[in-house]
Amino acid sequence: MIIARIVGTVVASQKDARLEGKKLLIVRPVNLDGTDTSGYVVAVDTVGAGFHERVLVVAGSSARLAQNMKDAPVDAAIVGVIDTVDVHLTDS
Amino acid sequence: MIIARIVGTVVASQKDARLEGKKLLIVRPVNLDGTDTSGYVVAVDTVGAGFHERVLVVAGSSARLAQNMKDAPVDAAIVGVIDTVDVHLTDS
Amino acid sequence: MIIARIVGTVVASQKDARLEGKKLLIVRPVNLDGTDTSGYVVAVDTVGAGFHERVLVVAGSSARLAQNMKDAPVDAAIVGVIDTVDVHLTDS
Amino acid sequence: MIIARIVGTVVASQKDARLEGKKLLIVRPVNLDGTDTSGYVVAVDTVGAGFHERVLVVAGSSARLAQNMKDAPVDAAIVGVIDTVDVHLTDS
Amino acid sequence: MIIARIVGTVVASQKDARLEGKKLLIVRPVNLDGTDTSGYVVAVDTVGAGFHERVLVVAGSSARLAQNMKDAPVDAAIVGVIDTVDVHLTDS
Repeated sequence: MIIARIVGTVVASQKDARLEGKKLLIVRPVNLDGTDTSGYVVAVDTVGAGFHERVLVVAGSSARLAQNMKDAPVDAAIVGVIDTVDVHLTDS
Repeated sequence: MIIARIVGTVVASQKDARLEGKKLLIVRPVNLDGTDTSGYVVAVDTVGAGFHERVLVVAGSSARLAQNMKDAPVDAAIVGVIDTVDVHLTDS
Repeated sequence: MIIARIVGTVVASQKDARLEGKKLLIVRPVNLDGTDTSGYVVAVDTVGAGFHERVLVVAGSSARLAQNMKDAPVDAAIVGVIDTVDVHLTDS
Repeated sequence: MIIARIVGTVVASQKDARLEGKKLLIVRPVNLDGTDTSGYVVAVDTVGAGFHERVLVVAGSSARLAQNMKDAPVDAAIVGVIDTVDVHLTDS
Repeated sequence: MIIARIVGTVVASQKDARLEGKKLLIVRPVNLDGTDTSGYVVAVDTVGAGFHERVLVVAGSSARLAQNMKDAPVDAAIVGVIDTVDVHLTDS
């Protein structure tokens, strides 16, 4: 999984039937120092995350294991809203 | 999923039986500022998207969950035509 | 899927039983301008493609959906011989 | 699989029900010379690994084959604590 | 699949039960000119490959289709020992 920040939304009226009613959010992976990366992913929200919150994103076939995503054509899902990230980097 | 733009088509007469009748399109992932990236993916169209439209592309095994793609040897599918993308980037 | 060009072959006598009789080809992904990239993938041929032909390659679990690849330990398969690629790049 | 070092933890109270009780750790892939890379992955711990230990991380759908991860929306799991890594690089 | 060279071993006593008895090898992907890349993958050996041999490595869920790997939490498996690689690069 990766840590990402919600930065936008995607609206698509003409879409796969199994995406109906799904909330498609644009998330940016964040680095361990808290800065955003330059990439992005469109992920389906399954936990009611809010704008700019840091979230946990699962990718690949496991995104279909998120709540209500069974058999949906999705490859990325938000499965948690992150409270805290605790990182201790030391010399290896 | 990613946001991409349809830039071309691929024709292959000699192909896997389960690809018969499928429309193979070349799509370019787009950046959040709307510019195209330099990469591309060949994706099967499942929603009737038009040339140069911005589309939602799902990759990996989930592409087989797109309409009529069950058991097809595809790893990328167009599952939506994008109306609007709304992005708000702020200082992290 | 990606567009690639067949550039070589791999021979392995000591191998997984389910790879017996499979033709393992080395393919190079090609850019949209027709040039080869510097990478490569070993893909199993399922459509009788010829040397230096441009082919359609599917990756990941979907490679096992190619003809006769059910339950085979393969992650890339050639599923089409490409006749034409038509690309129109315009200002975004 | 990759070799990684545990460098942190992630806490998320609002999350997918199937992630309840799972320990989410931040791991950094390490290079063969023992140095850390700059990337990271959030992996679920399934073997009781300790802070800063070198661990074996499996990614993708196979993460769901780790102990107690069946049907969980996870794409990375710690499946071993590494005792020794023995590498001999020679001229190719 | 990729072509890689075996460069080391990983020992982990504390590990997932389904990894017991599996041989974990460190392999380096090789370029088409025969040189090693700087990356690496930990792959489970399923064909009795020897140190420094060039091998065929399958990644992702298909690694679980290698012999005796059913339901094992592995994402890379050695499925062949390579005898010869024949590459002909020409102007595209």
